[in-house]
Amino acid sequence: MKEIERKFLLTKMPEIVLKSTICIRQGYISKSRDSVEIRLRQKGDAFFMTFKRGQGLVRDEAEIRINESDFHHLWPLTQDRQVEKQRSKAILENGLTAEIDEFSGALKGLFLCEVEFGDEAQARDFVPPQWFGPDVTEDSRYKNKSLAENGMP
Amino acid sequence: MKEIERKFLLTKMPEIVLKSTICIRQGYISKSRDSVEIRLRQKGDAFFMTFKRGQGLVRDEAEIRINESDFHHLWPLTQDRQVEKQRSKAILENGLTAEIDEFSGALKGLFLCEVEFGDEAQARDFVPPQWFGPDVTEDSRYKNKSLAENGMP
Repeated sequence: MKEIERKFLLTKMPEIVLKSTICIRQGYISKSRDSVEIRLRQKGDAFFMTFKRGQGLVRDEAEIRINESDFHHLWPLTQDRQVEKQRSKAILENGLTAEIDEFSGALKGLFLCEVEFGDEAQARDFVPPQWFGPDVTEDSRYKNKSLAENGMP
Repeated sequence: MKEIERKFLLTKMPEIVLKSTICIRQGYISKSRDSVEIRLRQKGDAFFMTFKRGQGLVRDEAEIRINESDFHHLWPLTQDRQVEKQRSKAILENGLTAEIDEFSGALKGLFLCEVEFGDEAQARDFVPPQWFGPDVTEDSRYKNKSLAENGMP
C-alpha cells in the first residue's frame, strides 16, 4: 500500500503534548549503488531487517524480525551508514498525527516531522501549523538512507 | 580461519561408499557488483543468511540463522541467482574427506568435489584419485555465486 505522507523540517522540538516516545536506530548494510537496500532497524526492543529492491511499481520489499543478539552481530556491517533518533508522536489540531524524529549523533540538531494522510486531496490541502518548517517531502537528501550515508544536508 | 581447499570437476558420481547426504539450496539476494554479498542457504532443515564484504585480509563476514518461514519469505529475492545441490561426503584412501556436490535444476550434470587440507604442503602434494576430473580451484566460474548468476560454465 502506498503511504501518502508529507515531511517537514522543524527547528526545534515543539512545545506540545507528545504521546509515546521510542528510540530508533537504523543502519544500512547495503551502499547506495547496490541493487538491493538492506536496512537493520532497532525500534525500542524490537529488531528488524528489511530488504527493498527496485522502484515505483516494481518494488520488492520484505521484512523479517531478528533477535537482539543477531542484531548486534550484524550492526557493525552498517558502519558509517547509521542514524539514531528519538521518535515522538503529536496529535495535530485537525486530528492528524505527526511523527517527530529528533536525530542524535552526527545529525544532532536535525528535527524531521512526518504527517500521514488518508488521500492525496487531504495531503494537498493540509495547512501546516506555524511551528512546522520547510516542506522537504521531495528532497531526497532528507531520506533516512541519504542522511545515514551522506550526513546532514 | 583460512580454509585450504582444492576443487575438482567430476564427470559423474563416484562408485564409492558415501556417508551422509544433505540437500543444499542457496541463493544470492545481492548481485555480483554490489558492495556486499548476501547469501540465503538451506542446508537440510537449517536456514542461514550470510553476509560477506571485501576481499582478502579486510573481509567482513557474518552469519545468522533464520527460521524456515523467514527463509521462504526472503527466497524470492534470490530469483535468477539460485543453485540447488545434493552434498555427499566420501572418505578418500589417504583419510581425507571429499565433499561432492551434485547440482540439479539448470546445472544438472555438474559435479564438483572439494577436499580440505590441514596445510598448504598437504594441499600441494595431494594426488587426486583417478575418478577426479580437472582441478578448477582457481577457476572463478565454478564458484557457487558465479554458477548461481551465470549458469553452467
